[in-house]
Amino acid sequence: MQISGASLIGQRTVAGAEGFRAIDPATGTTLEPVFGRASPQDVDDACRLAAQAFDAYRNQPLDARASFLDTIAEQLLALGDVLIERCVAESGLPRARIEGERGRTVAQLRMFAQVVREGAFLGVRVDPAQPARQPLPRADLRLQHVALGPVAVFGASNFPLAFSVAGGDTAAALAAGCPVVVKAHPAHPGTSALVGQAIRQAVHACGMPDGTFSLLFDDGHQVGAALVGHPQIQAVGFTGSRTGGVALMALAAARRQPIPVYAEMSSVNPVLLFPHALEARAEAIGRAFAASLTLGTGQFCTTPGLIVGIDGPALRRFEAAAAAALADMPATAMLTPGIRRAYDAAVERLAAHRGVERLAQGATGGAVCHAGRAALFATKADAFARDASLHDEVFGPASLIVRCPDLDAMHALVDRLDGQLTVALHLDEADRADARSFMPLLERRAGRILVNGFGTGVEVAHAMVHGGPYPATSDGRSTSVGSLAIARFLRPVCYQDVPDALLPDALRDANPLNVPRSVDGRGAARG
Amino acid sequence: MQISGASLIGQRTVAGAEGFRAIDPATGTTLEPVFGRASPQDVDDACRLAAQAFDAYRNQPLDARASFLDTIAEQLLALGDVLIERCVAESGLPRARIEGERGRTVAQLRMFAQVVREGAFLGVRVDPAQPARQPLPRADLRLQHVALGPVAVFGASNFPLAFSVAGGDTAAALAAGCPVVVKAHPAHPGTSALVGQAIRQAVHACGMPDGTFSLLFDDGHQVGAALVGHPQIQAVGFTGSRTGGVALMALAAARRQPIPVYAEMSSVNPVLLFPHALEARAEAIGRAFAASLTLGTGQFCTTPGLIVGIDGPALRRFEAAAAAALADMPATAMLTPGIRRAYDAAVERLAAHRGVERLAQGATGGAVCHAGRAALFATKADAFARDASLHDEVFGPASLIVRCPDLDAMHALVDRLDGQLTVALHLDEADRADARSFMPLLERRAGRILVNGFGTGVEVAHAMVHGGPYPATSDGRSTSVGSLAIARFLRPVCYQDVPDALLPDALRDANPLNVPRSVDGRGAARG
Repeated sequence: MQISGASLIGQRTVAGAEGFRAIDPATGTTLEPVFGRASPQDVDDACRLAAQAFDAYRNQPLDARASFLDTIAEQLLALGDVLIERCVAESGLPRARIEGERGRTVAQLRMFAQVVREGAFLGVRVDPAQPARQPLPRADLRLQHVALGPVAVFGASNFPLAFSVAGGDTAAALAAGCPVVVKAHPAHPGTSALVGQAIRQAVHACGMPDGTFSLLFDDGHQVGAALVGHPQIQAVGFTGSRTGGVALMALAAARRQPIPVYAEMSSVNPVLLFPHALEARAEAIGRAFAASLTLGTGQFCTTPGLIVGIDGPALRRFEAAAAAALADMPATAMLTPGIRRAYDAAVERLAAHRGVERLAQGATGGAVCHAGRAALFATKADAFARDASLHDEVFGPASLIVRCPDLDAMHALVDRLDGQLTVALHLDEADRADARSFMPLLERRAGRILVNGFGTGVEVAHAMVHGGPYPATSDGRSTSVGSLAIARFLRPVCYQDVPDALLPDALRDANPLNVPRSVDGRGAARG
Repeated sequence: MQISGASLIGQRTVAGAEGFRAIDPATGTTLEPVFGRASPQDVDDACRLAAQAFDAYRNQPLDARASFLDTIAEQLLALGDVLIERCVAESGLPRARIEGERGRTVAQLRMFAQVVREGAFLGVRVDPAQPARQPLPRADLRLQHVALGPVAVFGASNFPLAFSVAGGDTAAALAAGCPVVVKAHPAHPGTSALVGQAIRQAVHACGMPDGTFSLLFDDGHQVGAALVGHPQIQAVGFTGSRTGGVALMALAAARRQPIPVYAEMSSVNPVLLFPHALEARAEAIGRAFAASLTLGTGQFCTTPGLIVGIDGPALRRFEAAAAAALADMPATAMLTPGIRRAYDAAVERLAAHRGVERLAQGATGGAVCHAGRAALFATKADAFARDASLHDEVFGPASLIVRCPDLDAMHALVDRLDGQLTVALHLDEADRADARSFMPLLERRAGRILVNGFGTGVEVAHAMVHGGPYPATSDGRSTSVGSLAIARFLRPVCYQDVPDALLPDALRDANPLNVPRSVDGRGAARG
């Protein structure tokens, strides 16, 4: 497959005006081809085509929709090494990571195919008529969930496959029955083009309506703003900076018809070190922390950016072990020159902060261009409490240790934090009573609570939540990873006394789709 | 029970400053006592107390929470005739209606008690650990839904029991585990006080934490705005005007931490008359329509405000039958003098509209003060298409018939409408093929599609949806009536490798609460 620099409006390609190129952040070289910026007219065309496709797409048989998702997965794999090599070149991420991410992306599509086939996501409920009820008969009531409409998805820079063109938001929206218009991330346009072409091929091969999928290029904000403002777009999926997410939220709220925005934005992912665990395993936890911090050059949404423990010899052993491990790690490339500049500036601000001590610095990156050197800082609980800027995420391999006088101070610290994607606890059996008192607070602050691990691994599973209270996300009522993500793009509709012949298949008496249903509130319900 | 004019901040009463009285809209008389306006300090106190109560309340055993809801229902009934009489006096609604509404409110509380007891609403999912998985083991992942936090509920004027202090939003939020701060509607403060005192008594009797429930009085906008802006409030429930709902959405979006607003606002509830049904039963449908239109003086969210049919003799028979039925109906009191003034003005605007013909006027209300006379208008499809102001809801017993040249014009008309709570279709077997072509469109436009009936009856059931795309509601992803309403006030949390002793009961290995769970995506899930 050749990389085309054109936007895809359904099956049609549009070259676009002017242009931009990708940069290999590890070498600083510019990559061909030129990608044309989509025009406002292109945005309008893509959104209208998606709206035209909507009813036909959402009313495809569940099996056909599932096969379509499976076909996207196959087409992704069929891209072979071309995709892997381009993605490595555009992201600066190692080949093994990108291969793993492709596997994750493919597995994610297949999981949603299975979810679609099973049909529990429709959340079918039936309350049969009660014609003899006194004083009034009850009508026949049936409920299913239907797709919201065309969805705008913004590719994320840090997972060029799993959170990008065919990533979680796209897979969940397509699974729900929503056409998707993707705004490609300008940091990996070639990867985006290849994946977009694969999806377009799947649309064609599966006979899905034209407009089920479109892909638009832009290295500025114009296309994104026009997409979110377009009357046909009914929801937005975004993973990126807090500034970007907040801007999209404002655009969506200002529309004549406001729409939901699912923006995953900002999280420092606190790690709480409980005393017995720290005493017993300070060094091991420290080394594991250093490995988690530097994974993907610290550019995970779930990178552990804040460590909280009780000051004392055990915490100092943790610090020393983490510092030693980091000092040995050569810096790796960051995703873009801009991200690297922002990271360096944030690290410098921390280093210059009066109340903050620099504990360690990672090795340099040698010949690697735009490398992000790991950095470890420490501060005291009262300094941390006084300065809210220390609570902000630094996107990259930097972390701040807060030395607390006692458990109460740890609790008070967490209580003052904003919403988080994850909170990790390191604890031994003897710490459990202390940890228990933290649980209600952690449930209020985070989408995922994990024990004796780090949040950087985000399993694609049914029980996963990759979400959390604001500003971790714009909408803590949902997840962007795992099968529950399909719920983002659905709304319930009730059918009252509708004759069987007019009911959607999922609601008909004979249950021809064999989907799980709850009847009068009993039995299987929403998946 | 005496009616107190004081706000309730948990178990504490606060008299408030200055004051206002209720008005009996049917007689125009002012009712005692004086209700004191809550102060900004009172709002702050109520919200902080709610936040303090939150963890203790949401972690009550499910049985205890369910019993609390049942106890509220009992306390409501125990108010007896005092409540009914006050509510009739404050609303101008007939006694039979208010008794029915009390029954509905009590049934709603009991339904949520049952939902809480069964625990399916927790949506528990378990993905067991796979320690031997290659290349990486899978962690143990468990998911449940937790309560969002303190919820602000605005009492609605048109259902002074079922959508007010102990109405659907309060019941759903309390069921989900959220403390509730209610802003009483100033049109029925005495009813609100009585119901609030009943809930307070239930809090006390069941040993629920102080702050689980508070009730604040204000006849202006200050208390409402302060509530929605308060950092401890995590969601808002509102039923009322579009202006009011949009104002609350803007306040919520402008917070440092934006929060969800569930506002039910504006719907004309189109009724589509298909040709064969109209031919066969024009008069019967016309009479049933007139009855639905005037129910509660047309002050339902689901009042049929727009009738769409093909012009011709059958439609004229429908019009004549409806007009005759309306002419016989004496006008009844509207909820408030202000609502009546707005209604009269809207009817006058329609009557003066060049493209609109007045078909009928209801009888006067005789001695009834602030009576709303029914009004029936007709226009043509092209006039309706040209003037968007004709699409707006008129709150009261007025309806507009749009005479269309053919089915295509009916389809085009519905396609241009905003989101709706309900769409009703009147059809016979011979109309089904035509009706089928409308279904995808109707699913996009409405929260409930009903056949051969009117939307004014909203059954409290598992399969009910009382919601719909904007501007019917601010958030079409949810319902305000029926058991699914509990989902509004929940968010998912994942627990990864958390030791059994630290897990919430619903997620423990032994499943001590015996709640339904899905395991690896199979089996019972969210209720």
